[in-house]
Amino acid sequence: MEYRYSGRLGKFSSSAVREILKLTQQGSVISFAGGLPAEEHFPLKAVGEAFQRVLAQGNKTLQYGLTEGYQPLRESICRRMAAKGISVTPDDMLLTTGSQQAIDLLARIYIDPDDVILVERPTYLSAIQVFQSYGAKLVSVHCDEHGMDLDDLASKIREHRPKLAYVIPTFSNPTGQAWSLERRKGVLALCREAGVLILEDDPYGELKFGDPSIHYPSIFSLDRHPAGSCVVYTSTFSKTVAPALRTGWVMGDPGLIRHMARAKQAADLHSSSLDQQTLYQLMEHFDLDGHIAFVRKEYEARMRQMAALLRERDWPGVSWHEPKGGMFFWLKLPESVDSAELLKTAVEYGVAFVPGSTFYAGNPQANTMRLNFTHNDAEHTIIGMERLSRAIEGVLVR
Amino acid sequence: MEYRYSGRLGKFSSSAVREILKLTQQGSVISFAGGLPAEEHFPLKAVGEAFQRVLAQGNKTLQYGLTEGYQPLRESICRRMAAKGISVTPDDMLLTTGSQQAIDLLARIYIDPDDVILVERPTYLSAIQVFQSYGAKLVSVHCDEHGMDLDDLASKIREHRPKLAYVIPTFSNPTGQAWSLERRKGVLALCREAGVLILEDDPYGELKFGDPSIHYPSIFSLDRHPAGSCVVYTSTFSKTVAPALRTGWVMGDPGLIRHMARAKQAADLHSSSLDQQTLYQLMEHFDLDGHIAFVRKEYEARMRQMAALLRERDWPGVSWHEPKGGMFFWLKLPESVDSAELLKTAVEYGVAFVPGSTFYAGNPQANTMRLNFTHNDAEHTIIGMERLSRAIEGVLVR
Repeated sequence: MEYRYSGRLGKFSSSAVREILKLTQQGSVISFAGGLPAEEHFPLKAVGEAFQRVLAQGNKTLQYGLTEGYQPLRESICRRMAAKGISVTPDDMLLTTGSQQAIDLLARIYIDPDDVILVERPTYLSAIQVFQSYGAKLVSVHCDEHGMDLDDLASKIREHRPKLAYVIPTFSNPTGQAWSLERRKGVLALCREAGVLILEDDPYGELKFGDPSIHYPSIFSLDRHPAGSCVVYTSTFSKTVAPALRTGWVMGDPGLIRHMARAKQAADLHSSSLDQQTLYQLMEHFDLDGHIAFVRKEYEARMRQMAALLRERDWPGVSWHEPKGGMFFWLKLPESVDSAELLKTAVEYGVAFVPGSTFYAGNPQANTMRLNFTHNDAEHTIIGMERLSRAIEGVLVR
Repeated sequence: MEYRYSGRLGKFSSSAVREILKLTQQGSVISFAGGLPAEEHFPLKAVGEAFQRVLAQGNKTLQYGLTEGYQPLRESICRRMAAKGISVTPDDMLLTTGSQQAIDLLARIYIDPDDVILVERPTYLSAIQVFQSYGAKLVSVHCDEHGMDLDDLASKIREHRPKLAYVIPTFSNPTGQAWSLERRKGVLALCREAGVLILEDDPYGELKFGDPSIHYPSIFSLDRHPAGSCVVYTSTFSKTVAPALRTGWVMGDPGLIRHMARAKQAADLHSSSLDQQTLYQLMEHFDLDGHIAFVRKEYEARMRQMAALLRERDWPGVSWHEPKGGMFFWLKLPESVDSAELLKTAVEYGVAFVPGSTFYAGNPQANTMRLNFTHNDAEHTIIGMERLSRAIEGVLVR
């Protein structure tokens, strides 16, 4: 038969990252593309023990759960947040299938076609996809290594009267940069004044490198108590425990969270409660902070290794900043280079990355690229970077 | 701040079933409301063993997975489908967070505001919610105990030019009835001719009672090979294994499934791959068919017990059909009775059910109610039915 798809369909372009992931899952390609954690550091044993504790509670653990998510896990997350000075209750929180679903659910209850959403330039590509699928108009705000440009933000708020601003202020995807405190406060003040809701996406905040005395407070924590907050905050266990458990959470004004829960009820009733119960037991009986400290150290070492290799190569006209945390390097190549073209050569040489153009809501800068440094061990990183060098140097010579 | 919600918001009414579930989770209320499986029959030990087998494969099991779902589980489901004469490949299939998500994703890629969707009268309330959230106009087609009325269907296709028909032909939620083969073929023929896509929701098909030689072929199996099929089929492990693993699947034309996968990528990247891997190991090493046969027998006994209690009470003016499978009795009360009012009294007496009006896309019949018979054991069912009797007899006397 002839399928009469929705007009929305054209907006679901497949994510380049995930298509590349598919291609590189088999074979000998070394991938700096996906935002994948290091498998060898997953707390496999602790997850297994946590799961056993769940099942030891009997059959009821396998029953349907609440749309809002497993209450004891929400309470654990609240205690963890409280230790960081963020005061929330389980009623201010919804558990989601990764923080990706939090982005989707917020868009679902908040965005009408032609609403304007402000995003960073560049920003997380799957957020772009979600927002576009709801018919939003995306407007990019200029960013530098200290965060969103406040003058540009003020001017775009005046010009476009946006409903929402989507930001990743701490170890951005794709740039790896962290906003300064001044920029965080400035964006909060401007958005609050104009009634622009902020969606703060924080999957990487726990992966902080360098001086441990430096803190990057979430914008959410800089705002008032959740009720009436102009910030909705989302994070995930995907980077601190493991992605396969697909558990994220979203916090904000309790009324707004209640609306998101209703949207979630329609979307999937609830996320895996087995995963949620396992994470609760893990948080109770495992030194998660110790584990995160370990992962952080490992990732910092991998970042430093890649930074050293990049410095060693010193490709003419290629610039980058050292990430302060998170998972990614962001490279600017000479203007003549189209990194999507470069990727084809690179994959032939057995290495993959994500072309930077996919991270722009409009007017892409094709001479940029994102490199993940967390997934590969030292040996593979060296080989991968050699292959990448061949590809890049081939282009630069031309 | 003042939140500027989407116009979509008003369409996410909270499901009455889940709100009642919340109320009755604590305390001594005996609930015939939720569509809950019997906890005591969950294969807890087998799930635990399957999980251990997953973890034994090492850390890679905790990594991100594919949006389409764990390939070996898709292959297992294909083999299981083949045994029922349904020929599909993993490319014709997407794993979802329960079949609820399949309904949502199909609506997302297929429905534009003001599109007409045909539904049974009555039908699954959370499907109504999903479709309305996408701005669809729902048109109910008359049904009797043999299925959808073909004359009414033909006339409503002519009048409304619908895009989609949503049906639960095998042990319907809420009525527990099964369509005859003739009605299945008739609906397929009419929809195929008019280019109306059928979404066949089949969560209960495995829970068949009575004569084992009677088969209810899925409408999907009556159609051609998935490519070009006018049927999209969804089912779930929630009723055959356990709901907490939140794993469903959806099958259909591979192009259509690919579009759904892209929508899923935006919605949540992928569902819990830990749950999917666990279900794969369970299917490999556990006698799932034997387990289903056991559950089926237990549920049939529970159904017969409730049927006997209903016959014993023999409330004047109250009619019902014995379910041929699934999880529910559907009661028609005298026209003067509003079952939503009755529920208030019933909860005071310590028993809950779902008022039938929530299952209508429009023009609800308030004198109907749904009773779940699978969740409570014999003793609780007796006590619950006594309490329900007090409530109903009080209303009938007035």
